[in-house]
Amino acid sequence: MSDAAAATDTLPWHPPSPAPDEWSRVVLVSVSPQVDGGRWPIQRSVGETVEVVAGVIVDGHEKVAAELLWRHDDEGEVQRAPLRLRYNDEYVGRFRVTELGRYRYKVRAWLDAFGTWQDQFRRRVEGGAPKAELDSELLDGAALLQRAAEAAPDADRQRLARYVDRFRTGDAGAALEDTVVRLARDNDPAEGAVESDWLGVRVDPEHARFAAWYEFFPRSAADPGPDGEPVHGTLDDAARRLEHVHRQGFDVVYLPPIHPIGTTHRKGKDNAPTAGPGEPGSPYGIGSEDGGFFSVHPDLGGMEAFDRFKAEADRLGLRVALDIAFNASPDHPYVEEHPEWFRHRPDGTIRYAENPPKKYQDIYPFDFESDDWRGLWDELKRVFTFWIDKGVTIFRVDNPHTKPFAFWEWCIGSIREEHPEVVFLAEAFAKPKTMYHLAKLGYNNSYTYFTWRNTRDELRAYGEELFQTDVAEFYRPNFWPNTPDIFTEYLEHGGRPAHVIRFVLAATMSSAYGVYAPPYEHVDARKHPDREEYRDNEKYEVRTWNWDAPDSLQPLMRRVNRIRRENPALHHMRTLRFCDTDNPHLLAYWKEDPSQPGPAGAPASANGAASEPRNLVLCVVNLDPYHRQSGWVSLPLDAWGIPHDRPFEVHDLLGGERYYWQGGGAYVELDPHSLPAHVFRVERHAHTERDFEAVR
Amino acid sequence: MSDAAAATDTLPWHPPSPAPDEWSRVVLVSVSPQVDGGRWPIQRSVGETVEVVAGVIVDGHEKVAAELLWRHDDEGEVQRAPLRLRYNDEYVGRFRVTELGRYRYKVRAWLDAFGTWQDQFRRRVEGGAPKAELDSELLDGAALLQRAAEAAPDADRQRLARYVDRFRTGDAGAALEDTVVRLARDNDPAEGAVESDWLGVRVDPEHARFAAWYEFFPRSAADPGPDGEPVHGTLDDAARRLEHVHRQGFDVVYLPPIHPIGTTHRKGKDNAPTAGPGEPGSPYGIGSEDGGFFSVHPDLGGMEAFDRFKAEADRLGLRVALDIAFNASPDHPYVEEHPEWFRHRPDGTIRYAENPPKKYQDIYPFDFESDDWRGLWDELKRVFTFWIDKGVTIFRVDNPHTKPFAFWEWCIGSIREEHPEVVFLAEAFAKPKTMYHLAKLGYNNSYTYFTWRNTRDELRAYGEELFQTDVAEFYRPNFWPNTPDIFTEYLEHGGRPAHVIRFVLAATMSSAYGVYAPPYEHVDARKHPDREEYRDNEKYEVRTWNWDAPDSLQPLMRRVNRIRRENPALHHMRTLRFCDTDNPHLLAYWKEDPSQPGPAGAPASANGAASEPRNLVLCVVNLDPYHRQSGWVSLPLDAWGIPHDRPFEVHDLLGGERYYWQGGGAYVELDPHSLPAHVFRVERHAHTERDFEAVR
Repeated sequence: MSDAAAATDTLPWHPPSPAPDEWSRVVLVSVSPQVDGGRWPIQRSVGETVEVVAGVIVDGHEKVAAELLWRHDDEGEVQRAPLRLRYNDEYVGRFRVTELGRYRYKVRAWLDAFGTWQDQFRRRVEGGAPKAELDSELLDGAALLQRAAEAAPDADRQRLARYVDRFRTGDAGAALEDTVVRLARDNDPAEGAVESDWLGVRVDPEHARFAAWYEFFPRSAADPGPDGEPVHGTLDDAARRLEHVHRQGFDVVYLPPIHPIGTTHRKGKDNAPTAGPGEPGSPYGIGSEDGGFFSVHPDLGGMEAFDRFKAEADRLGLRVALDIAFNASPDHPYVEEHPEWFRHRPDGTIRYAENPPKKYQDIYPFDFESDDWRGLWDELKRVFTFWIDKGVTIFRVDNPHTKPFAFWEWCIGSIREEHPEVVFLAEAFAKPKTMYHLAKLGYNNSYTYFTWRNTRDELRAYGEELFQTDVAEFYRPNFWPNTPDIFTEYLEHGGRPAHVIRFVLAATMSSAYGVYAPPYEHVDARKHPDREEYRDNEKYEVRTWNWDAPDSLQPLMRRVNRIRRENPALHHMRTLRFCDTDNPHLLAYWKEDPSQPGPAGAPASANGAASEPRNLVLCVVNLDPYHRQSGWVSLPLDAWGIPHDRPFEVHDLLGGERYYWQGGGAYVELDPHSLPAHVFRVERHAHTERDFEAVR
Repeated sequence: MSDAAAATDTLPWHPPSPAPDEWSRVVLVSVSPQVDGGRWPIQRSVGETVEVVAGVIVDGHEKVAAELLWRHDDEGEVQRAPLRLRYNDEYVGRFRVTELGRYRYKVRAWLDAFGTWQDQFRRRVEGGAPKAELDSELLDGAALLQRAAEAAPDADRQRLARYVDRFRTGDAGAALEDTVVRLARDNDPAEGAVESDWLGVRVDPEHARFAAWYEFFPRSAADPGPDGEPVHGTLDDAARRLEHVHRQGFDVVYLPPIHPIGTTHRKGKDNAPTAGPGEPGSPYGIGSEDGGFFSVHPDLGGMEAFDRFKAEADRLGLRVALDIAFNASPDHPYVEEHPEWFRHRPDGTIRYAENPPKKYQDIYPFDFESDDWRGLWDELKRVFTFWIDKGVTIFRVDNPHTKPFAFWEWCIGSIREEHPEVVFLAEAFAKPKTMYHLAKLGYNNSYTYFTWRNTRDELRAYGEELFQTDVAEFYRPNFWPNTPDIFTEYLEHGGRPAHVIRFVLAATMSSAYGVYAPPYEHVDARKHPDREEYRDNEKYEVRTWNWDAPDSLQPLMRRVNRIRRENPALHHMRTLRFCDTDNPHLLAYWKEDPSQPGPAGAPASANGAASEPRNLVLCVVNLDPYHRQSGWVSLPLDAWGIPHDRPFEVHDLLGGERYYWQGGGAYVELDPHSLPAHVFRVERHAHTERDFEAVR
């Protein structure tokens, strides 16, 4: 095979004879973080820090110098910071990403010739070497400074020249001055430096990391009719509910598709194969004579109503997320205008969606490989840019895993060129590799398996995978306890306590979470008998909700959202860590605010002048919605910077109580029928013994 | 910065608009094994298998086809095998490496168009689709076969054409025949196939993986003088000891440097700064007027004696390993012939080795960056090829981590071009990244931290790192309980039981191991008071050993080496797995022979006709050299394919006893003063109940 033969001589592990300029004693063996060898950027959001760790080795006992270089794509200048040796030949540095868009970073390392010389010289001096030996060595040091002076700016060159003179006259003290080290370092010619490739960072808006999503169907937002019967709501009705959403502390209001709905093969109540007269159909069957992806359903009030809805959301500081579902009803205008964008059956008709023997005659999937794929792709990208021009910058994308990955990489990537502020949430409840790949190629939020992880060990294993492995570098989970498509048996059987448990978990484990709210806050626990879905599913019918029901979960949601806002620890997800518990029904985890400066977990100083401690939150959740559970939680006091022999205070922000703990274990007892979770703020202020006496 | 600006448009995660030929619906998300993204080859030895796992995804519900391609560098033809779906979108295939040198492999994946069509067609048939629908779909299937026929060889093209005809006439049965699937698969045009890069495998001789090394100083091989005084031995004396080494079951005999030793600043007994008259010096101070790296010390009998030694080793089937230490004594011929190969002090003299304030005046290190570095590198490579021409194919390389990595990559790589049979053992007791990097760039055996890992948890963690992570793809450990440089407190204080424990561990945990034998087999446990070294260190003096001492560890060593030979499980290292024990002094681990065909751990079949089970060895070692220890070992019966409700037999190959166990836990009790280890062969043959009755 010619391709194999050609490859023989080009494999990098087929060592050529090195040319003089092609080898360095310094070897860069690893740079992290990186995703698939730099093929994809890591993700961060505005204000976060990128900590870079480089593995650098050199033969012998020489010292290494290394630096981190970074720049934003839209800025001309490369910034630099030295990397510091941590341990095990790992050099660490960090930079903060402050602007949306793309940053890149790389690492550079070289032999620290002067530092090595000075270290050995110092040891000669301390070992009592004779003056003749020191004088001789100083000549070597002078030669190194001379090399540094050659490339130095004027002022430094003169200073270095003076040191060269002092070295040559045998001034051993000069060699140990701080100034000469700094001058040598600042003007190090860094000969034989090795560099990594540039690696990328995609910087998203902060709300890609920290946001609470509220999903509802606008057509169910109207008040009921005189006999309590549901009335088809409009986006103006929906706009009247935004005050309610805002008061509960949500950040994003997310609407299922708002486009005209097809009539051909329209689905009926609870996904019945045909709709009865007056049934509204599924909003995912998009397109009718009233328009398609660029139109708003007339029954929702049309585009003007949407504009008013968006204005009200803006007034309240709520962001609007729209649902983009790339499938067409048989009535979508494209079907006549662009039949070439759809697959055809051998008899010439357009192929509806099917998974034999099941048929979905109400949906025509696009043919992304059609002869006019370029035209189709451009048009679908235009769907996003149309709504971006309307001020929408968050999109929940329906079933992205059934469209080509190459389409998403191109579509999202090229939109992001112009609009780095846009957030795409991938609704891909697919297999792990597919979900991860969609995140790598541009989705900045992703649905997850959280929805089906119920036990302590499941939740811990999944949380560790998402937040504590390299997955966290490219995948940003958005935790949902329910969706219009998914209503689990745990929620059905566990009722109100289960709803509280899953809500607290979603909102505190992940800093980005959402809830399909109306049935959730009213604990509508009626499951469809055959499917993992709600009965009387809003996807197929208009419903009515009592938005002010006194017994709803709204007060709990409001409180949890306020706790989230007030505690910076809960604004992050990659910091999630678990605690051991001795009862498998109790899940315990904690988070610390990584963004505040100051020492990590520094205890109060001995003289009582407390440094500002970072915000630290510990959650303990009883996962059993039926029974009171109690047990011991192991507390990582060392990581928290709390001495084992001193009491400290924890404040349950959910229940209101304060407890005084000491040592590495805490006893908890949680009754799902009152409050199944503690959300403790751990207070690390300096307390005097007297403080504790007073409260006891 | 211009380089940064230039990089902006070339980063792969800056998505270009895809050209029609540049995108595929199939995405290859991962291929393993690979080392640093393919920068280095994985290592295997002759006869081993490479199992390749590819992560392949596609949008939608389509089926994927994937294949593995591989070839040896010296063979023209690429071989192919299909990859089979395992789970989680992972496709698995394997190939066996049978020749020394370099193999390469890659993965290719594409959309299985006909397989997808046929799967859906079958479901239509089973779902009772009407004939009109099936006829219509058959036209699509015919089109796929037509495409396959276009590129097919004559015979297949005709067969495919006949199927096209049958499809077109509505013959639904034809679409489900095995033959059409095979024809379509064999002639699949594989449109839009994606390929990985070629990845490399370095194939070493089997003894790079499975060998027992015996180290001794030939100058200590002579019989003592008439008053018991040591006599300087020759390589002819050493040759007389080879029968002894062979009888003990060792495979490799390894000699410290055998070259002429310098006299200038020669070290005395126990590393004294100066040698007294008649002291022989350290063999690592290489070179005198009698020659250097290409010569044999006259007191060892010169080159002729070496040739006789080598011939005797060949006769016994023992391989000879030489020690290559790239440093020169001040008397080495190079010092006069090539002063430019050494670093110089400012006063013009050659720099000796030093780590201020310590000075090593007896050793001149080479300057690998000298102006004539090319000449030096060529000369040092010639040291290896000289001894290769003498028939030596194993080299233990002294302190490789103090020479540039680029030198080793070039030197080893270019030697291996001609001599893939050569084995290089890196004596780099350095930091982990350095040790791993040396292995990546070509060393096929490496010293390890085993020497200092004494507790159960230390040994388990280290074993898991070496044998169960990606480290095993490039790093092949050689376990040594002692060396002339290292004699640990554990061995000193633990005496004979400790020596037995560490020997059994080295020989059974790793399939490649070695021992600095004379003091070990005679349990010479006298440590230098200040250093982790033997007292009366052979590096600095001639000693005398009673090679036939009746109380030596030789019988144990012989037995362990025989057990190793007879049990294929012990010929491998990457299969090492640990068992839990309830006593921290008990370490338990097992290995299975991966090379035999047949199902992994298949239990005997129900009808009593046992399939040939793979060799399986379980070791349990009491790590406490002072006290009897007992406890329970958890047995992985499922992995072993042994039913929990049936008894099975284990045969202690070390102690000779046979035990009958049942269930997942085994009680053991080990007395270090008799035998501190069990080396069980686990017997998985079908036993009838009667067999067990008979032995009870």
